[in-house]
Amino acid sequence: MAKPSPSYSNDPALKALGLALRDARKGQNLSQEELALIAGLDRSYLGGVERGEHNVALINLIKLSTALGIKLNDLLKRADL
Amino acid sequence: MAKPSPSYSNDPALKALGLALRDARKGQNLSQEELALIAGLDRSYLGGVERGEHNVALINLIKLSTALGIKLNDLLKRADL
Repeated sequence: MAKPSPSYSNDPALKALGLALRDARKGQNLSQEELALIAGLDRSYLGGVERGEHNVALINLIKLSTALGIKLNDLLKRADL
Repeated sequence: MAKPSPSYSNDPALKALGLALRDARKGQNLSQEELALIAGLDRSYLGGVERGEHNVALINLIKLSTALGIKLNDLLKRADL
């Protein structure tokens, strides 16, 4: 299993994003597997994003918000970012 | 000079982000040099971001929006993302 990057694992913005993403996913009754499949991303990568372990770049952020049917700016607003 | 990544250079989301960032920077009468200095990023990197050449990750997106004194979700909303 890939270890998280130590330099990112405690970043508050990544933590906030991860929590907002998890909330949005659960609010749609989707499993990590289901959301990852819709977004075209790996399930274990998504798990790491939800734990705030990845410094997610814009293209993957958009894949995730699109898969949730919301705008990225709305997802980030939920994370107070 | 670093070449842009070919796989990113025509991504519409990155282009939209770059244009919104440039607009926001110019709206505050900041040069690329000034904004880069405030954000703690390299001037040439910022130029590439404004041209849509970098798949910018969350931590740098937040550095840029913070340097502009706006929330990241507001910057992305201006980019219709």
